[in-house]
Amino acid sequence: MIVRDKKGLAYMTDIRTVTVCIDAMGGDSAPEAILDGVRDALAADPKLLIILTGASESIGPFAALHERCAAHATTEVIGMEDHPAQAVRAKRDSSIVVGCGLVREGRADAFFSAGSTGAVMAAATLGMGRIRGVSRPAIATVIPTSAHPLVLLDVGANADVKAENLVQFAHMGAAYARIVLGVLEPRVALLNIGEEPTKGSMLAQEAHHAMTEQVPGFVGNAEGRDVTAGTVDVIVTDGFTGNVVLKLLEGTSKSLMGQIRDAMTSSLSNKLAAAVLKPSLTRLKERLDPEAYGGAPLLGVRGVCIIGHGSSGSRAVTSAIRVASQAVRGELTETISSAVTTEG
Amino acid sequence: MIVRDKKGLAYMTDIRTVTVCIDAMGGDSAPEAILDGVRDALAADPKLLIILTGASESIGPFAALHERCAAHATTEVIGMEDHPAQAVRAKRDSSIVVGCGLVREGRADAFFSAGSTGAVMAAATLGMGRIRGVSRPAIATVIPTSAHPLVLLDVGANADVKAENLVQFAHMGAAYARIVLGVLEPRVALLNIGEEPTKGSMLAQEAHHAMTEQVPGFVGNAEGRDVTAGTVDVIVTDGFTGNVVLKLLEGTSKSLMGQIRDAMTSSLSNKLAAAVLKPSLTRLKERLDPEAYGGAPLLGVRGVCIIGHGSSGSRAVTSAIRVASQAVRGELTETISSAVTTEG
Repeated sequence: MIVRDKKGLAYMTDIRTVTVCIDAMGGDSAPEAILDGVRDALAADPKLLIILTGASESIGPFAALHERCAAHATTEVIGMEDHPAQAVRAKRDSSIVVGCGLVREGRADAFFSAGSTGAVMAAATLGMGRIRGVSRPAIATVIPTSAHPLVLLDVGANADVKAENLVQFAHMGAAYARIVLGVLEPRVALLNIGEEPTKGSMLAQEAHHAMTEQVPGFVGNAEGRDVTAGTVDVIVTDGFTGNVVLKLLEGTSKSLMGQIRDAMTSSLSNKLAAAVLKPSLTRLKERLDPEAYGGAPLLGVRGVCIIGHGSSGSRAVTSAIRVASQAVRGELTETISSAVTTEG
Repeated sequence: MIVRDKKGLAYMTDIRTVTVCIDAMGGDSAPEAILDGVRDALAADPKLLIILTGASESIGPFAALHERCAAHATTEVIGMEDHPAQAVRAKRDSSIVVGCGLVREGRADAFFSAGSTGAVMAAATLGMGRIRGVSRPAIATVIPTSAHPLVLLDVGANADVKAENLVQFAHMGAAYARIVLGVLEPRVALLNIGEEPTKGSMLAQEAHHAMTEQVPGFVGNAEGRDVTAGTVDVIVTDGFTGNVVLKLLEGTSKSLMGQIRDAMTSSLSNKLAAAVLKPSLTRLKERLDPEAYGGAPLLGVRGVCIIGHGSSGSRAVTSAIRVASQAVRGELTETISSAVTTEG
């Protein structure tokens, strides 16, 4: 990708060095899966620098072995059982709080954690601060569809929103689709329960009106079925509906795939037939695997922040680091800032 | 099933004669698919009477051939393009308005239509009236899960609701699960974005509190993934979220099944293997087929009212008639009335 710097000089984005800070303590398989993912990311991108935060004994030996990797030892860990906002205030030397601080100080361009979503959200919002003009940061997620990936937001940061928040989510989601998914002119839709502008809740009707006036590329309402149909590039909704959608998708895929597997192994002849089909079905599964899209970006904070699923394996970590580098090189934060200010 | 009448006498519900009024004009394949479904329903239940509403030339010959079927000719049709509430007021001699009128007059016990959901909702609410104490009727749907079917409501009647409406939805959904699905003590949950009572939107928090106090069998919050997991029997939500969930489920199943079919037919060896698996996969598809659960009941009106999908085939019509008869014989309306009054 070619971008222009502040002096208007064009250059290939992949020549810019990017520093990504990684929380080595977050997620079910930390630190092993995290470090495996970092190793693969370093191998794939020669202009990538990594700073690890976490327990000295976990990250020190790894950093010593990899020349573009530094260890920033921390003494505290925020667990899944901690109250997010309280833990962020109390555990100042935790891998999450320190990581977000490194971004604020300009020592890292981006932060990734597969730890507590609430804690990362609180630490990034407090630590990095919000982009000027953004009232509410939002969590986006990339959903694989049969046609092309879709950006859905908010998926859980804001359970109660106003129409003006949804307009900002639209700007942020469009910026992400452009920079990370490479969609030049993203088609942006509002999740609603009918096609016409007069359909839906009072919030949805108000948001439809505001988005029609303020959001470039706004194509109108999308319905539940459009989430997997690949008809648009960005779908905007409140964090309550978005979170229900995300968890329903996870649940449905898992349950349907499980039942298909059961059907395929219910007899010897079925098992033999399933063996023939396995390569094709594995390719399908890989194409639909959310791990390929590397975690959920917290959009609207000053710095790139990617939140990984608690179950993130090394592949998800590598993808998240690639996505973070793309976001930094494509100037995601600056793009959101100017989109929000223009409309502001 | 055994129920007790007003004098306390127990009797088998299947000996009670039920009259179901059917809109022969509603749905993509009307009247053929509707009449085929009616024929099968009449054959399956000797105590079933049918009144058809619709164009004389469509329903007359069919009714003449079937002794337990009467034709009530109407001259108007409400189409999918009509504004529901306006059409219900303007087209007094339409198959939908007349059908709801027959229930109000006591000439039919239940009404089924695969026509415009909005129009059926408006006609039933205006024509049959609400059950005393019910502020807002809600549309429920039965979702097949791997374990057992689930009642989800509201799926679209009320985009904006209050906590007290959700409490009533819970009573109505529980009554439906008991009477139609035969679940003696339904586990009722609130759709939310976290397990704890303090999670979610302000509405969800308030509803959680109210349901804890007022809803028997309330088990707390359910998340998106619980919709297909079969962990509870009834999930209550607002009509906005519920409608998004319903359409997302339809879209996901369709898209995933389509992609699996593509993968299975991508080569000759795959096609041969798929042929071996076909019977097992067909059984799975049938088990997950929403047509088996026969349409979406509009709960809270004075009379049984079932709304079919526009694409309803004859099997869906037969199922809907069976479900309507079960609801009448199990005294759904009376059960909802007493549940709402007790709490009121």
